Amino acid sequence: MSVMRFDETTSDWVVFAPSRRLRPHADASLQTQPSEPASAAGCPFCPGNEAFTPPEIYAVRDSGAWRVRVVPNRFPALTIEDNPQRRHDDQAFQFMGGCGAHEVIIESPDHSLFLGQQPTEQVVLLLRTLQLRYRNLMRDGRFQTVVIFKNHGAEAGTSLAHPHWQLLAPPVVPRLLRMKHFEASEYYDRTGQCLYCDMLHRELDANVRILTQNEHYVAFLPFASHTPFETWIVPRQHQASFQLVAMEHFTCLAAILKSVLLKLHTALGNPAFNLTIDDVPRGDEGKEYFLWHMRILPRLTTPAGFELGSGMSINTVLPEDAARFLSEASSVEEVG
Amino acid sequence: MSVMRFDETTSDWVVFAPSRRLRPHADASLQTQPSEPASAAGCPFCPGNEAFTPPEIYAVRDSGAWRVRVVPNRFPALTIEDNPQRRHDDQAFQFMGGCGAHEVIIESPDHSLFLGQQPTEQVVLLLRTLQLRYRNLMRDGRFQTVVIFKNHGAEAGTSLAHPHWQLLAPPVVPRLLRMKHFEASEYYDRTGQCLYCDMLHRELDANVRILTQNEHYVAFLPFASHTPFETWIVPRQHQASFQLVAMEHFTCLAAILKSVLLKLHTALGNPAFNLTIDDVPRGDEGKEYFLWHMRILPRLTTPAGFELGSGMSINTVLPEDAARFLSEASSVEEVG
Repeated sequence: MSVMRFDETTSDWVVFAPSRRLRPHADASLQTQPSEPASAAGCPFCPGNEAFTPPEIYAVRDSGAWRVRVVPNRFPALTIEDNPQRRHDDQAFQFMGGCGAHEVIIESPDHSLFLGQQPTEQVVLLLRTLQLRYRNLMRDGRFQTVVIFKNHGAEAGTSLAHPHWQLLAPPVVPRLLRMKHFEASEYYDRTGQCLYCDMLHRELDANVRILTQNEHYVAFLPFASHTPFETWIVPRQHQASFQLVAMEHFTCLAAILKSVLLKLHTALGNPAFNLTIDDVPRGDEGKEYFLWHMRILPRLTTPAGFELGSGMSINTVLPEDAARFLSEASSVEEVG
Repeated sequence: MSVMRFDETTSDWVVFAPSRRLRPHADASLQTQPSEPASAAGCPFCPGNEAFTPPEIYAVRDSGAWRVRVVPNRFPALTIEDNPQRRHDDQAFQFMGGCGAHEVIIESPDHSLFLGQQPTEQVVLLLRTLQLRYRNLMRDGRFQTVVIFKNHGAEAGTSLAHPHWQLLAPPVVPRLLRMKHFEASEYYDRTGQCLYCDMLHRELDANVRILTQNEHYVAFLPFASHTPFETWIVPRQHQASFQLVAMEHFTCLAAILKSVLLKLHTALGNPAFNLTIDDVPRGDEGKEYFLWHMRILPRLTTPAGFELGSGMSINTVLPEDAARFLSEASSVEEVG
């Protein structure tokens, strides 16, 4: 069970999930995650070890063998049994139950194949599964949005090497997303345009930070990237939510995702990275003000006191330099 | 020279400082900082090596030898020569020169003595120097606030082992601070109280997250701590800015800072940490809505995709458990 507490100084909620710490802080190492199995043999995400995960939520199967598998996170930050009713303690500090869903999406049965190297068809199955789970969780009226993300590499906070994604459905819209929605709504009210679509057109016009594009998607490194090699994938046509991606567009989305990850992998030598999907809150799926987008954040530098204290990012690489570097690095042929 | 670019999606500025990256990204390792000298012999912050730093800005001297020394950062994120005038490129993306100050405050001549182990008198000299530099920089009307911070340990982004603090004076108020000021102003307008003073009184009343206190300062782990063992030091009496700390209070402030750092050091085995001072923007020093505070953030866990994507923190240790753990860990006698 977890609890959420309200931070009055920033107006956001903090998730407290002590169960994610496997052992007490009797020494300096506050281990937040189980350590990685040395080989595929002990991996709970590998075929044959299904009994080591909590009961399966969903799977794509092919002749009996699963190709993509969804299970609850064994050390969940949020749980569906918790109660999101707001309460106060004796000193008027506000809290609620850590109500939500926390799922793990196992990318493929392969323990070591990197997402960029998977066949396009496998990436399509994965993306469709993410969308299916998102839509399914939105049927629970307590969940206000879904945050889809992937951690790759120890520096990015990965606990298990077997490639996987995660999905958290919190009972509040996280503050950073609220802020992005607010800025985009203001822009829409002022201009009648989607801020992100507008930025995309200006990036296409500038044509110095575009990494790759296809019929339905564009990948670029934004003008004000917060970290070196931050890369976004956005739909070319306006669409507020990943929930609305049409079945016939998934092949294009899988292809551009593979292409971006391969370029980063090749040029930067398999960097650790986080990938997140920014989306709208419940009920805004049809709105004009926001464009869902994937953000890929390589973990090449360490934020320090200034960044933590001020929230302001210091980036050591201009995105147009990073885009040029990625484009020049030998591009690996896409296998589909 | 650096440049700042405006992120329209979050309404904050990003600092681009390519000079902080010493070598090009020809391979995977984007080194942002010079590597640490193996011993004090090659340390630019040690006495005798003064020629290896840029020209001294200020120093406290005692019989000719310096005790605290201030120099410009050799790889500054912001420089005083840059022009903060806002400009637009051909696609209407907004930028300005990276105008500001970036200074390094060398804590003491000692290469390896940890701040918590310094005599109180030395910590007083350090704190007075920080205040002096803050006040001095505020005379330049282009700088909107001063962010004072310290990084300890490689995981906290330290580039040099010799204990030091840093100070950045940016030409805009960073967005996270603006947000904290906004929340506190709203609270003040609604209640007529300082949010932080009010929280402090409720923490003193609850008395389960107080770490230590003395005549003028209180150290506690806030109710909605964002990271395990996050600890704040706040003045007991309302005071909006660190610039206003009275000369006769510095001994109390030095004593509580030493005490907190020693407790963290002992209980957690010399953890990496960041320390920042949150303060008001230029001109608000006399205001009622905000209380300056030190935040000490041990780097015990790695923020991953969910935290980066949503801005929401997942904390694996309740602050009252952390406070109890710190209090129970053998408390080292303060040497003054």
